[in-house]
Amino acid sequence: MVERMLGTVIHAPFDVRFEELDRPAIIEPTDAIVRLSATCVCGSDLWTYRGINEITHPVSMGHEYVGVVEEVGSAVTGVAPGQFVIGSFFASDNTCDICRAGYQTGCVHRAPVRGAQAEYLRVPLADGTLVATPEVPDDEIVPDLLSASDVLGTGWFGATAAQVGPGKTVVVVGDGAVGLLAVLASAQLGAERIIAMSRHEQRQKLALEFGATDIVAERGDEGVAAVKELTNGLGAHSVIEAVGTQQSMTQAIDSTRPGGHVGFVGVAHGVEIPGDQLFYKLVHLHGGPAPVRRFLPDLITRIMSRDINPGKVFDLTLPLSDVAQGYAAMDERRAIKALLQP
Amino acid sequence: MVERMLGTVIHAPFDVRFEELDRPAIIEPTDAIVRLSATCVCGSDLWTYRGINEITHPVSMGHEYVGVVEEVGSAVTGVAPGQFVIGSFFASDNTCDICRAGYQTGCVHRAPVRGAQAEYLRVPLADGTLVATPEVPDDEIVPDLLSASDVLGTGWFGATAAQVGPGKTVVVVGDGAVGLLAVLASAQLGAERIIAMSRHEQRQKLALEFGATDIVAERGDEGVAAVKELTNGLGAHSVIEAVGTQQSMTQAIDSTRPGGHVGFVGVAHGVEIPGDQLFYKLVHLHGGPAPVRRFLPDLITRIMSRDINPGKVFDLTLPLSDVAQGYAAMDERRAIKALLQP
Repeated sequence: MVERMLGTVIHAPFDVRFEELDRPAIIEPTDAIVRLSATCVCGSDLWTYRGINEITHPVSMGHEYVGVVEEVGSAVTGVAPGQFVIGSFFASDNTCDICRAGYQTGCVHRAPVRGAQAEYLRVPLADGTLVATPEVPDDEIVPDLLSASDVLGTGWFGATAAQVGPGKTVVVVGDGAVGLLAVLASAQLGAERIIAMSRHEQRQKLALEFGATDIVAERGDEGVAAVKELTNGLGAHSVIEAVGTQQSMTQAIDSTRPGGHVGFVGVAHGVEIPGDQLFYKLVHLHGGPAPVRRFLPDLITRIMSRDINPGKVFDLTLPLSDVAQGYAAMDERRAIKALLQP
Repeated sequence: MVERMLGTVIHAPFDVRFEELDRPAIIEPTDAIVRLSATCVCGSDLWTYRGINEITHPVSMGHEYVGVVEEVGSAVTGVAPGQFVIGSFFASDNTCDICRAGYQTGCVHRAPVRGAQAEYLRVPLADGTLVATPEVPDDEIVPDLLSASDVLGTGWFGATAAQVGPGKTVVVVGDGAVGLLAVLASAQLGAERIIAMSRHEQRQKLALEFGATDIVAERGDEGVAAVKELTNGLGAHSVIEAVGTQQSMTQAIDSTRPGGHVGFVGVAHGVEIPGDQLFYKLVHLHGGPAPVRRFLPDLITRIMSRDINPGKVFDLTLPLSDVAQGYAAMDERRAIKALLQP
């Protein structure tokens, strides 16, 4: 008899339901089943919620997760039942050439992890995907660890892709959780100056707390002009794009000095980059689905030692059964990010 | 009285004339006048020749040059009359933050150098733009030095932008002079394997001579498939795009493995890069007008010591007065690159 559990399924735009589902079981010997300690709603889930990603059939939602290993397949040797683990939204073998180069989201065996807004989750390629904490963490840092599963790792990748480092002036386009954590990452990576582009007072405050040195409220050409004014007319060395729209991408490229780096991590929707214009910008462009797995060991260390507090992006905590409220609050920008407790 | 000289002017598509013009004179105290020893026709000149770049008025052509300094402005201290010099197609101060970061084509004071298919040329910002050879070179290496003015420097930038280095598999898209010299640059930079994409037997031969290890004659999706087959299905680490069309850019991006690097140096014409597709490719994209000035001292050393022979791309040598024949030969792909002797 198949066991049952409760989980989140989107049936149509704005129609998120918490309903009974089959509890996932081991399918491949490389799988693990994780009992979730915390999960959350992602900014990228809103593309589906709003119907911009077409919904042709009911979809199990959620790809950010921390929890305790419940069961492992016969081939799993790296994690064991009882361990507290964090994984990324793409399962990866972590052994192929692409993974070893640090691009686990491009792993030759990659598989999306979906259905994390639930009580239990099946994680493929458990040895390559999951990272266990040294001990089961205190409850108070569970939100920090959860953030590492996606938004912190994604912001960190954005900063890395934009070559953030000492002496650099950084611009962050986007004040969602990823943008805010790109500010935190930039500060950790030693940036000299961090310009956060945000119009929302609460998010501006968090950006400053995370290490932003300047706030620019303007957008588009005015935003670019404001950045230029702050950078001797040159533009920033490193710009992190954390939205995924045409406007934000254009703003990011135009805010970068010749020879500078754009790290883009906003899931691109309807973005066209005119090659003829890009050619004369002389910028570096790098981004995509963040290979969070690359950063997890380091991020876990920073969190366990209380060096960083990325969990502050969760400004709404709900029981998992109220998941629909979490989507609505993020859609209406009443919350930066909703944490869900199974 | 203004002195006169002969130079190349394009009046309309396919209408290149060698005609009498004012001889350039010092305008700014930072200028130099160079008496040209050799010049040439660039692949990018063909965009104008073919009318793809609109011709609204007669345009003095040519931006690749080597020659002897004839006269310098009162503020010039770095080069002196009688010295043999090489410069790039953008004049640069070589002192601003952008230049010091190696992006002289993005110099805050940059100015295009135009009119080099002539007897004399005015070069602005001479101290920042021109590099003198240690001594006046033998005639036999003048073509090599001339190539450094653009096509070698551009191929070298493409290889650098694509992060070519030891252990890397490289693909070069485009078998014009820039593509062929990107092959040479990749070999010099220690690439393990160099796949040249070319359908032309003569160009394939030169690619192999310059260090290519494999030739792929297919284009588009078939070309990409051939590259994948040569790279365990992964794609290349480093891909140099040296054409500037939609097809070549797509082919370059699709031939690159996740985490790999595309260096694009073909002057982009009508290229649109779909952000949504680029996002999932996880490649690095960098390119633009090559900051040739960055590479000139190193390239001059390699040429003067006979380590490299990039001048082999000149497979047609004409008196400057026959410049129109040079355009026609390159347009019809009868010649890779035409060297012109004033």
